[in-house]
Amino acid sequence: MSNSSVNSSGAEPLAEKRAVVLLSGGLDSATCLAICKSEGFVPYALSFRYGQRHAIELERAQWIAESSDVRKHVIVDLDLGGFGGSALTDHQLDVPKHDCVDDIGAEIPLTYVPARNTVFLSYALAWAEVLGALDIYVGVNALDYSGYPDCRPEFIRAFEAMANLATKAGVQGNRLVIHAPLITWTKAEIIRKGLALGVDYSKTLSCYDPDSFGRPCRHCDSCLLRQRGFEQNGLVDPALGA
Amino acid sequence: MSNSSVNSSGAEPLAEKRAVVLLSGGLDSATCLAICKSEGFVPYALSFRYGQRHAIELERAQWIAESSDVRKHVIVDLDLGGFGGSALTDHQLDVPKHDCVDDIGAEIPLTYVPARNTVFLSYALAWAEVLGALDIYVGVNALDYSGYPDCRPEFIRAFEAMANLATKAGVQGNRLVIHAPLITWTKAEIIRKGLALGVDYSKTLSCYDPDSFGRPCRHCDSCLLRQRGFEQNGLVDPALGA
Repeated sequence: MSNSSVNSSGAEPLAEKRAVVLLSGGLDSATCLAICKSEGFVPYALSFRYGQRHAIELERAQWIAESSDVRKHVIVDLDLGGFGGSALTDHQLDVPKHDCVDDIGAEIPLTYVPARNTVFLSYALAWAEVLGALDIYVGVNALDYSGYPDCRPEFIRAFEAMANLATKAGVQGNRLVIHAPLITWTKAEIIRKGLALGVDYSKTLSCYDPDSFGRPCRHCDSCLLRQRGFEQNGLVDPALGA
Repeated sequence: MSNSSVNSSGAEPLAEKRAVVLLSGGLDSATCLAICKSEGFVPYALSFRYGQRHAIELERAQWIAESSDVRKHVIVDLDLGGFGGSALTDHQLDVPKHDCVDDIGAEIPLTYVPARNTVFLSYALAWAEVLGALDIYVGVNALDYSGYPDCRPEFIRAFEAMANLATKAGVQGNRLVIHAPLITWTKAEIIRKGLALGVDYSKTLSCYDPDSFGRPCRHCDSCLLRQRGFEQNGLVDPALGA
């Protein structure tokens, strides 16, 4: 990780294509980072410490960033938990657990964090502007997370339209693009793509409620969706063998 | 200030109309807060500590919040300065100074903070969702700050469209509104409206580069625009008499 080539302005064309990649430490964002690299971008990874129970995911994000040779990895401290309202940040609430994937409801789940992707993408936009980057990658997925408003394609398009009005890049006639390559894929398709690109899923963590060693609970929505994704590829999740 | 009526969900209609108001401690946001109250909302004030040189503005924001009887005032710690790229957060750069208001250029000024209003409004959106509020007030102004992309009406409209796709409120058929009542007003008009609503401008601070006592420099863009606004009303800025 290095800070050496970070410019303070996007005024001059850069010889390299830079992109900011949101990196949570989970399966989706690890795949998204691999796609970003495969499309010729120099990746700058951005993670958030936002009062989540599963802070161990940040250790995994660091491992992924280092092993993926990103140019720089920044972890930003957020204070979203101060607003309350989510089981992921409010430790008074229980993470919903199920026995199988079919029990997951279609309603907006309690693990939804208010405006989370809006806040995350806003920080990515700020960093992109400083870096002179016109591309942001985010591993949101509409299919597996149909209950989250800010994982839908229409949200991503609206954020992109707003971003092009919010920044110097947009004013200067360049076009910012929010890439959400996983947005319509099943978990099985995401895993297939990632494996083709050489992603090592053994260190990724998707669980909403892991134990202190980072072992997944196997019963939250995220664990069940991940398990089915590997099963549909005829595989065992490599993170479970550790 | 009280936390007693903060709900964790906007599912049930509230008997009162709540609004989140961005409050910087400056003249514009103090006026915006007064307008919010005059339009019948219970205000929740939101400020940010983001590495700004002029941190004393937060003391002024607290004073305004307390004397305006807001329901709650939250100051969020941001880490925008870590991205660099602005004279307001990068202490290596000098704030531009001029002798008179006509010397202010039309280019995007160095005091621009990347994606600042996008980040601020995103936090406001998160809090609004937790509070069950459908209204956000922001004191941006397109006329005096023509160089800032994220102070333009088209940016505000695009953010509002995005916000309605990002949140539970939008999904559930409610409509979030971003109010930017000052956006087309001159500084003189803003001051006139504020005085009519009883705003005490003596404690507001607009300067980009105040001394350690909070006294304005009188030569940055913000000082010059403010001075002209009072002059055009035939008044002396009450903050200068302290």
